[in-house]
Amino acid sequence: MKAGKPARGWREKLFTIIFESDTRAGRNFDLALLFLILVSLVLVMLQSIESVHEHYGPQLNFLEWTITIVFTIEYILRLLTVKSPLKFMVSFYGIVDLLAILPTYLGLFLPGSHFLIAIRALRLIRIFRILKLSQFVREGAAITLALKASARRIFIFLCFVVLLSIILGALIYVVESGSNESFSSIPQSIYWAIVTITTVGYGDISPVTPIGKLIASCIMLLGYAILAVPTGIVTIEMSKSAAKEETTSKACPNCGNSGHDPDAGFCKYCGGPL
Amino acid sequence: MKAGKPARGWREKLFTIIFESDTRAGRNFDLALLFLILVSLVLVMLQSIESVHEHYGPQLNFLEWTITIVFTIEYILRLLTVKSPLKFMVSFYGIVDLLAILPTYLGLFLPGSHFLIAIRALRLIRIFRILKLSQFVREGAAITLALKASARRIFIFLCFVVLLSIILGALIYVVESGSNESFSSIPQSIYWAIVTITTVGYGDISPVTPIGKLIASCIMLLGYAILAVPTGIVTIEMSKSAAKEETTSKACPNCGNSGHDPDAGFCKYCGGPL
Amino acid sequence: MKAGKPARGWREKLFTIIFESDTRAGRNFDLALLFLILVSLVLVMLQSIESVHEHYGPQLNFLEWTITIVFTIEYILRLLTVKSPLKFMVSFYGIVDLLAILPTYLGLFLPGSHFLIAIRALRLIRIFRILKLSQFVREGAAITLALKASARRIFIFLCFVVLLSIILGALIYVVESGSNESFSSIPQSIYWAIVTITTVGYGDISPVTPIGKLIASCIMLLGYAILAVPTGIVTIEMSKSAAKEETTSKACPNCGNSGHDPDAGFCKYCGGPL
Amino acid sequence: MKAGKPARGWREKLFTIIFESDTRAGRNFDLALLFLILVSLVLVMLQSIESVHEHYGPQLNFLEWTITIVFTIEYILRLLTVKSPLKFMVSFYGIVDLLAILPTYLGLFLPGSHFLIAIRALRLIRIFRILKLSQFVREGAAITLALKASARRIFIFLCFVVLLSIILGALIYVVESGSNESFSSIPQSIYWAIVTITTVGYGDISPVTPIGKLIASCIMLLGYAILAVPTGIVTIEMSKSAAKEETTSKACPNCGNSGHDPDAGFCKYCGGPL
Repeated sequence: MKAGKPARGWREKLFTIIFESDTRAGRNFDLALLFLILVSLVLVMLQSIESVHEHYGPQLNFLEWTITIVFTIEYILRLLTVKSPLKFMVSFYGIVDLLAILPTYLGLFLPGSHFLIAIRALRLIRIFRILKLSQFVREGAAITLALKASARRIFIFLCFVVLLSIILGALIYVVESGSNESFSSIPQSIYWAIVTITTVGYGDISPVTPIGKLIASCIMLLGYAILAVPTGIVTIEMSKSAAKEETTSKACPNCGNSGHDPDAGFCKYCGGPL
Repeated sequence: MKAGKPARGWREKLFTIIFESDTRAGRNFDLALLFLILVSLVLVMLQSIESVHEHYGPQLNFLEWTITIVFTIEYILRLLTVKSPLKFMVSFYGIVDLLAILPTYLGLFLPGSHFLIAIRALRLIRIFRILKLSQFVREGAAITLALKASARRIFIFLCFVVLLSIILGALIYVVESGSNESFSSIPQSIYWAIVTITTVGYGDISPVTPIGKLIASCIMLLGYAILAVPTGIVTIEMSKSAAKEETTSKACPNCGNSGHDPDAGFCKYCGGPL
Repeated sequence: MKAGKPARGWREKLFTIIFESDTRAGRNFDLALLFLILVSLVLVMLQSIESVHEHYGPQLNFLEWTITIVFTIEYILRLLTVKSPLKFMVSFYGIVDLLAILPTYLGLFLPGSHFLIAIRALRLIRIFRILKLSQFVREGAAITLALKASARRIFIFLCFVVLLSIILGALIYVVESGSNESFSSIPQSIYWAIVTITTVGYGDISPVTPIGKLIASCIMLLGYAILAVPTGIVTIEMSKSAAKEETTSKACPNCGNSGHDPDAGFCKYCGGPL
Repeated sequence: MKAGKPARGWREKLFTIIFESDTRAGRNFDLALLFLILVSLVLVMLQSIESVHEHYGPQLNFLEWTITIVFTIEYILRLLTVKSPLKFMVSFYGIVDLLAILPTYLGLFLPGSHFLIAIRALRLIRIFRILKLSQFVREGAAITLALKASARRIFIFLCFVVLLSIILGALIYVVESGSNESFSSIPQSIYWAIVTITTVGYGDISPVTPIGKLIASCIMLLGYAILAVPTGIVTIEMSKSAAKEETTSKACPNCGNSGHDPDAGFCKYCGGPL
């Protein structure tokens, strides 16, 4: 999103306020934006509740337009201050910002209650801006790193769970579909298998035949046991990065051994000073 | 809560009994208090059950007043024995003790069945006293320590889960609200998303459209996989503190420092042989 | 259960067959017993199913008496072969064995359908005999050891979860009891809180007010996060015992260092032969 | 499944295309096969949905036959190119391939709607072919290895959970069967115990008596706590294999052995300096 600093002058000043957060004005701008995003979040939620919408329709509408106009001004300012506006427009946060203001304007031209609500919900996407807050970024980095390192393995594991669910769903379909209307098709049965293997267990669909219950029990025990796999993967990755953080890269100049604690003054293998 | 010892005399004697637990009288006092708290706990629960309340109303009332008066005496004794009663009154356990006796007295002046029950439940707060029991404190310390060290990361992780639930709730709302009355508003849908991603799965709300079920399946698998993250965080923190416990045994005979690795041959602080 | 070997002779011979499993006859006896226990298990289950009980009542009855008589003979033989029969009778497996045969005889004197079923289920307790099978004992020992080492901490953790559930149950009771009949009393609400915090989520009770749903969401997220604690505890204990297993207690005769791998031929610190 | 290469010629050429994936043609063949399997997967699912089956019956039928014929040709080619066709036919993937084409042909001779659907679902078994894709094999190997190493312990643990569920199911049956029709038999109650202890919690069966709810709460807390066991087992196994991966980098310049600890100064096999 670092879309390039503009030439010096008022635009540069605005740029540091809008895009950066190491000046006081920049931090205040960030906080104001966060507040507005949270307000618009609550607004979208309230508008979706029928009883609230009926009683406070005009007031919510007024607020919606106020916030939309503020966001529009912010969007235009961002376009004006970056060096290459086009680059910003196609960037992730550029699209997020546009999607946050577009629905209200579209509502003028496309009346129609349900479709409108659907695109209104799009404004919620602005919530991703919160992820850019410095606090989140710093603390979340370690988690994200560990997840990224284990993402492939977890993805493979999830694929395996899905494969298993397909097989088990087909199996339960064969067993139950005769005497239980809930298992009306294989996709439905696969949905049930996923609900069961992940230990969510809605209960909207549940087996009624003894064999179906036996199979269900096995799936539950399986899901209970293999839950251990992603946990193991992530724990290993996290302990690896935690270990890296801890041991310094300092090597003993005498014997060449490394792996000393950060507070070590002497080599723990030969006793020479570090 | 160590609100300062009073001047020597009967007050000091009472102080060691009421506030400390290393004398025999102090331990007995603690046990008696624990017993009374558990009795009052059961009492509050029984009073909330309508059929019990109807049949044994007077008896329960009598017990309630007895316990309240005992707790009141204890509270007054605590106020008398500490050096600065005001400091005790605004301390955590001071407030807890007050909230445990207040409801019964308030019931005299504020008749009105439902409100009364609500403030009566306040007395349950006394349960926190149990956390002060020495057994709890010692064993729980290691857990609390590990949780404290990982609290920030877990909090960030939970924030991320909430953000995700908001987005996914809005998504399912757009998909399901047309054909499913359960998904009546976005907050309701977010509630459902949290129920699903944490693998609780009440089943009071569940998707009915094929696309809704597909999205639900993805949320479940996601929740199943990311459950690994807090586990990883806590395990790492615990293994760190466990490692610290282990290393502290060997002390350098030269400089007296401890905290060496099990395989260290020389002190890492002064270089002398271990 | 090692109740002491009897004097040499036929009793000793029987003893090695019945109580020990390192001879061929002993192993066969164990297998036959396991088979009988499983049959009696299936039998108790079948008897509890009304439709089966109606159609195959006499046959099941015959089987029940056959098995009971065999178990009675076994019990008498055990009493005869051990040195101190009294010691055996009050031992854990002695009581289990007695409870497994008693219900059928009691059924003769105490007719009455429901009570009979209840004590019949007692025979299931014989299943614990399976835990004595050598395979179970060996593999399960490591798990049991790790669980025992972490039992105290896990127990404290569970106490904490229960305390939390009591507070949260009281809270949801205050919020929901006015508008939701399901939360009829505080114990009921505590039950719900436990169902929610352990992510079981039956759905027989679920909040209906917005504030209730908000609290429920927080409880779910909490339960999702603190699930990490017992996992962390057990993992640490297991890794400790795994580490102990791996590094041999071999110490280098030259430099005295230990902690070598089982396949090490030379000290990894000084290079001297082990 | 490496059923032996045939004599040189066109059969060898076909063999490398069909069975191997390191040539370009082989990779393309694999991709085409994966695509066909996924199409046949969607087909089986669609056929099981009544409304789809009614409207697009002939088209789906046509597709089914097309795919079956392609799979039949592939199966014949596989039989022709391997050295020992019989060995292939009884191998795991040989049976999978046969089961994937058989149902459609059987449908000609065995009309009868429900039975047909059941054996049609058999075609889903082809999904296992996906597991052979190189990507899956490589990434999944580490997971599979860790699971295999801990399989015995996890199996013992699951047996223990089942034993526990049987005892707890019998207990709840005794308590609830009098006042709750859902707990109609012991097997049903065991099913409920498994649903509860694995934290799935359908809610189709749930206790109604106070004592039943108390027992249920204990089971939930138990399930919540012992979930830690398989996680601990798998994490330990994974960290072991991760540690092995790490240590293999350094090789002794003297004897060439690797597998030394990161802090080793001398080769543990020959004693030479590293």
